[in-house]
Amino acid sequence: MSERVVLAYSGGLDTSVAIPYLADQIGGEVIAVALDVGQGGENMEVIRQRALDCGAAESIVVDARDEFAADFCLPALRANALYMDRYPLVSALSRPLIVRHLVAAAKQYGGTVVSHGCTGKGNDQVRFEVGIGALAPGLKVVAPARDFAWTRDKAIALAEEKGLPIDVSHKSPYSIDQNLWGRAVETGFLEDIWNPPIEDIYSYTQDPAVTRDPDEVVITFDRGNPVALDGETVTPFQAVTELNRRAGAQGVGRLDMVEDRLVGIKSREVYEAPGAIALITAHQELENVTVERDLARFKRSVDQRWGELIYDGLWFSPLKQALDAFIEDSQQHVSGEVRLTLHAGRATVTGRRSEASLYDFGLATYDTGDTFDQSLAKGFVQLWGLPSRMASARNQRLAD
Amino acid sequence: MSERVVLAYSGGLDTSVAIPYLADQIGGEVIAVALDVGQGGENMEVIRQRALDCGAAESIVVDARDEFAADFCLPALRANALYMDRYPLVSALSRPLIVRHLVAAAKQYGGTVVSHGCTGKGNDQVRFEVGIGALAPGLKVVAPARDFAWTRDKAIALAEEKGLPIDVSHKSPYSIDQNLWGRAVETGFLEDIWNPPIEDIYSYTQDPAVTRDPDEVVITFDRGNPVALDGETVTPFQAVTELNRRAGAQGVGRLDMVEDRLVGIKSREVYEAPGAIALITAHQELENVTVERDLARFKRSVDQRWGELIYDGLWFSPLKQALDAFIEDSQQHVSGEVRLTLHAGRATVTGRRSEASLYDFGLATYDTGDTFDQSLAKGFVQLWGLPSRMASARNQRLAD
Amino acid sequence: MSERVVLAYSGGLDTSVAIPYLADQIGGEVIAVALDVGQGGENMEVIRQRALDCGAAESIVVDARDEFAADFCLPALRANALYMDRYPLVSALSRPLIVRHLVAAAKQYGGTVVSHGCTGKGNDQVRFEVGIGALAPGLKVVAPARDFAWTRDKAIALAEEKGLPIDVSHKSPYSIDQNLWGRAVETGFLEDIWNPPIEDIYSYTQDPAVTRDPDEVVITFDRGNPVALDGETVTPFQAVTELNRRAGAQGVGRLDMVEDRLVGIKSREVYEAPGAIALITAHQELENVTVERDLARFKRSVDQRWGELIYDGLWFSPLKQALDAFIEDSQQHVSGEVRLTLHAGRATVTGRRSEASLYDFGLATYDTGDTFDQSLAKGFVQLWGLPSRMASARNQRLAD
Amino acid sequence: MSERVVLAYSGGLDTSVAIPYLADQIGGEVIAVALDVGQGGENMEVIRQRALDCGAAESIVVDARDEFAADFCLPALRANALYMDRYPLVSALSRPLIVRHLVAAAKQYGGTVVSHGCTGKGNDQVRFEVGIGALAPGLKVVAPARDFAWTRDKAIALAEEKGLPIDVSHKSPYSIDQNLWGRAVETGFLEDIWNPPIEDIYSYTQDPAVTRDPDEVVITFDRGNPVALDGETVTPFQAVTELNRRAGAQGVGRLDMVEDRLVGIKSREVYEAPGAIALITAHQELENVTVERDLARFKRSVDQRWGELIYDGLWFSPLKQALDAFIEDSQQHVSGEVRLTLHAGRATVTGRRSEASLYDFGLATYDTGDTFDQSLAKGFVQLWGLPSRMASARNQRLAD
Repeated sequence: MSERVVLAYSGGLDTSVAIPYLADQIGGEVIAVALDVGQGGENMEVIRQRALDCGAAESIVVDARDEFAADFCLPALRANALYMDRYPLVSALSRPLIVRHLVAAAKQYGGTVVSHGCTGKGNDQVRFEVGIGALAPGLKVVAPARDFAWTRDKAIALAEEKGLPIDVSHKSPYSIDQNLWGRAVETGFLEDIWNPPIEDIYSYTQDPAVTRDPDEVVITFDRGNPVALDGETVTPFQAVTELNRRAGAQGVGRLDMVEDRLVGIKSREVYEAPGAIALITAHQELENVTVERDLARFKRSVDQRWGELIYDGLWFSPLKQALDAFIEDSQQHVSGEVRLTLHAGRATVTGRRSEASLYDFGLATYDTGDTFDQSLAKGFVQLWGLPSRMASARNQRLAD
Repeated sequence: MSERVVLAYSGGLDTSVAIPYLADQIGGEVIAVALDVGQGGENMEVIRQRALDCGAAESIVVDARDEFAADFCLPALRANALYMDRYPLVSALSRPLIVRHLVAAAKQYGGTVVSHGCTGKGNDQVRFEVGIGALAPGLKVVAPARDFAWTRDKAIALAEEKGLPIDVSHKSPYSIDQNLWGRAVETGFLEDIWNPPIEDIYSYTQDPAVTRDPDEVVITFDRGNPVALDGETVTPFQAVTELNRRAGAQGVGRLDMVEDRLVGIKSREVYEAPGAIALITAHQELENVTVERDLARFKRSVDQRWGELIYDGLWFSPLKQALDAFIEDSQQHVSGEVRLTLHAGRATVTGRRSEASLYDFGLATYDTGDTFDQSLAKGFVQLWGLPSRMASARNQRLAD
Repeated sequence: MSERVVLAYSGGLDTSVAIPYLADQIGGEVIAVALDVGQGGENMEVIRQRALDCGAAESIVVDARDEFAADFCLPALRANALYMDRYPLVSALSRPLIVRHLVAAAKQYGGTVVSHGCTGKGNDQVRFEVGIGALAPGLKVVAPARDFAWTRDKAIALAEEKGLPIDVSHKSPYSIDQNLWGRAVETGFLEDIWNPPIEDIYSYTQDPAVTRDPDEVVITFDRGNPVALDGETVTPFQAVTELNRRAGAQGVGRLDMVEDRLVGIKSREVYEAPGAIALITAHQELENVTVERDLARFKRSVDQRWGELIYDGLWFSPLKQALDAFIEDSQQHVSGEVRLTLHAGRATVTGRRSEASLYDFGLATYDTGDTFDQSLAKGFVQLWGLPSRMASARNQRLAD
Repeated sequence: MSERVVLAYSGGLDTSVAIPYLADQIGGEVIAVALDVGQGGENMEVIRQRALDCGAAESIVVDARDEFAADFCLPALRANALYMDRYPLVSALSRPLIVRHLVAAAKQYGGTVVSHGCTGKGNDQVRFEVGIGALAPGLKVVAPARDFAWTRDKAIALAEEKGLPIDVSHKSPYSIDQNLWGRAVETGFLEDIWNPPIEDIYSYTQDPAVTRDPDEVVITFDRGNPVALDGETVTPFQAVTELNRRAGAQGVGRLDMVEDRLVGIKSREVYEAPGAIALITAHQELENVTVERDLARFKRSVDQRWGELIYDGLWFSPLKQALDAFIEDSQQHVSGEVRLTLHAGRATVTGRRSEASLYDFGLATYDTGDTFDQSLAKGFVQLWGLPSRMASARNQRLAD
């Protein structure tokens, strides 16, 4: 029996060409799987049809927007996931979701091979293949662009040779990946890291330098998850979508950084993530109010490790699962409201309130109503500093 | 022989009243020590004279601005020190410097007691007393505001009783601490954490919402330290001062947060630190370019611990010294230039270049000139994912 | 209405004297609460009666042995809890359990004050009071030995004055705390840290230097918990008791160390914990076999932090609870058998087997049957070393 | 011009056969480099001659014993390096030293290729190749056993075909790597991880179960390095050698564990490291006495990461260098004496003394002479527990 290849299909040149190419190479059939993860752009039905037109035996489109928001974006929010303290893991979050659906399709349609369009120098190949290896270790993986060393010219030649219904005349200067949680842009002139980005590359965000009135939003969280905006109940997908719109309109969430790829090289990346940045900013402050100090301090290292793991393609790893258990426990009181001003590229917290607040006015105030017993401090200070004091005394004794 | 008290003197009501009060209590003389740490405000000579007018036996003012910049602000910069990922340690940095000069004055003038104006519910008492205990374990410490439970009314009554030359008629609604590295503001209405800050409380920064043209600055770093601005060589003090001016003019560096104090309570703090935030932003990105990945990942936890230690009053601790050794080693190639756009409250990196860059265009580019051998990736991906794959296979085997 | 004091009662001199002393001081009644946490020694009924004879209004004894084993010792085992890589937290584990029962007794009997016999320089005062503050913040705490600066002579004088039924003639040279999980010994001559311990101070362990035949035991674990010994099902209490006996008979589990107390001083401690050390040794090795590498590496830092927290009296802290969630998740496959040889002071693993093993003979063997694809290694090695290689090349370039 | 291959030569079958094989494959000359790292066994001159007899153009032997002890074993000691809390990094330490000499030989003799005898499923290939890439990125690497998929049979056939002076008749059942710091043993029957080791596999250690008198040794440390044994000054090499002899004679330092290899698989390893285990045990306890608590706690995570890095082949990485700076700073007061009893497989500390001790009898004692002010404790306990108390109060309030 011939093999069936399940292909992660984007609708673009490389994965379109891959359909007849893989069918030839493997002597079997191709099942195209395309996901709506909130990336916008082309109609999913058009994409579905294009795969068929390119020769796919089956073409599946999945509306995974709610699943992506609830199962991938929200865990990242609860972890305040910012790789290298900056990048909210846009692409890294969608890959394990796509893997989940590729494996499901392989099971449903009898696929034995999985294919993706990634090259050999990026992170996404790792995310796809480590994920597939975890969910379905028996599946083989083929990545034509990497394994057969495709160039763009070769892909165009193949498309023309096969007469595929792909417009190859227009070459965008940008390499883009986008989804509900954000948008990543790479392009030639940014590979000179001294060059600034230009306004033209942005799509999710307006120019923050343009004069406009501020916007103010109150986000309600329940156990670390956004559940209402300005008092209106929202689904996870709605929360991110609406904040993409409102924070994006104020230019919030642009990022420009040199980043450490998993494969060991540094690359320059430009991102837009208005909703993600607004939500993480609000969430961190609500944690400041509701999470006990030692837990908050340790959670910072958990959050950092979580972000590294997801970036490094280890969504389905045992460590990720155990970190999730920690994070879930930490979120049980992260409920309340945060008021955020969105303006000129900044998302600024200006107020927070919570039934679960650990902020105690009576203890904090210097005014009337102070309930803090200052006499306790002297003993605390003495014992807190005792180890340092003894070490200093030792050092002075030995130095004499 | 009577005791001599060395007093950390600010020129304000509490420490002015403390001069005759301590002299009485202890039956000795008071040596007032005031430091210029870039806080601006009153002329230091006026402050010096006021101490004498209040009865100090000696009154010393120290221009510690360069020392503060070089020995305290720059180490914080190299550590990207942001307590709770936000606060650049404004007050926490000046306390060990003041301690250093108090101890020196005690040695010079035969002081046996050291005194400061802190209350018993803040962090600064800890920073003063742990520092003094480390540098001069034999010195006693007295903190009148804490140890004798002063209120403002009591201090005013004492001032009037003693006929001190202090204007007590004007009560600022704000409790402020400021120095070269930033400015902290506390005030009654902000103790309701749902209240937003008002424009009136800011001094180092202009309103970011006002329309103005962006400013662009190129910062040159050498081994993690800023050494030039727009090509002009600067001292550490000049670097921070000039960036306070330029970033402050664009509204950069305002912070509003609920913070975990060392004494175990949460408090609401508003900060301004335009120069510090601009410098840290630029420094972090230069590290992204010049520091190897594993070192960068581990340094994040070192940086976090460094910030906690300083916040917690442990500047003179053995751990702080060992972390400094790590950080110093990490900075040996953090040299180069970062271009920063300052505008509308944001400091945004738009370019970076360095002789010591680890960014390799040939490896990073997807265009002509690519030198990355993609065939290596397949083996890497397989072994990278092997532990997760084996764990998943085990889990599936046991679940069946 | 007069106050009722709930006293953690051990039956010894200090807490016996505390009964009439507290009744006088507070002008109320004393409820004595004594727990059997496996410490052996006196009959609990004798202890119960003694409290009444000393004037307690109520005297309660609780057989908490199973609770202690299941709810305190086993979590410590799953965390491989060894403070400073050595000490299995003997006393630190029993304190929160005692707190739990003190608070329950206060609720039942209308207690408003809780009392314990600890001094002011040890860790246990912290563990008691932080625990009580967490479970019942409204309760007051009084510690006569600390708060009224008792000495032994003063306690004896009080006992004689009150005619208490306590034999004060025999002064043991040892200060001992013991429970199911181990035994701690302090004594005057060990305060010279150059002095070796003498055989006389040990009770749970035989001299490991005596010649005897080895013992071999197979421990069966289920999700990190010991459930059978040599195939016989055991309760948690039985598992620890039986291993205390068998490992103790072989001299396993003696410890002699200088330790960092929470109050900032170093102290010299001698411990015996035969069962704990045997169980932790076996448990660690079963984790080596069944826990994935990245999870195992991160768990080491979780385990270390867990041990510090418990040592530091923070059993009831939010961070401890979140770490428990992590640890519980990590243990889901820590099931299987470990064979341990107990001999001459050592507990040595000589075999391990598990349905959930991640050890794969086919991948590990160098003999026939090898299934590892060595060709993958070259790519892995290249990319694994790429960041170091680039950093070295940069360093050499700059050094030239 | 033909290539010259620098070969890490052990004198054994694989690397002997590699000499003519590489000369053929590469069409050039082979430079054999053999190091004495304290492995004992064959005379180095015999090994040198054998390489020539096998056709090497040059054959170099290096007495690297002192260099290995001082530059590799002692840093591991200062880091208390125990991979997975057990394994003192025997083989992992010698690899970077061998790399250093291979690169030096390549420079001296014009080598362009470096070769080693490792397979593709172990850690050592990574250590060799990452090290070579770091020190001399321009050198090519070839590993015949991995790259040409050698089996033992193929190596024997090659040896016979070439008439090499190698005795291939005797096949040891053991795969062994040994050096000054310890000895690693792998063998077929141990690949069943339920099988116990047998006495026959050990060489550095006597059977700990045999009855013999204990041995006692006093080790003097200076800044973390052993400098005298029983008062006799020793070099680093002598310290390890002598403790290998004395601790080995008592059966100290046997290890049997399942270990996580870098390539993602678990393997079963048996080690002997009598001197290493004795030294680390003593060093850890001297740190307990002389290192301040917070520094000691953080150093545990530094030590763990250091051990992982070296195990993972990253000796020449920037992170390793920065961790070394931390560790070196931490050791400045780790000076003093530790008395160790060696007996029946255990190395037990029984005494410690140091001019730099932080142990303070006056603070620690419960007897006469106590200088600890217990009244300080109450305030400390209250503020220490405040965050937990507030969190518990919040939780109870919300639960009601």
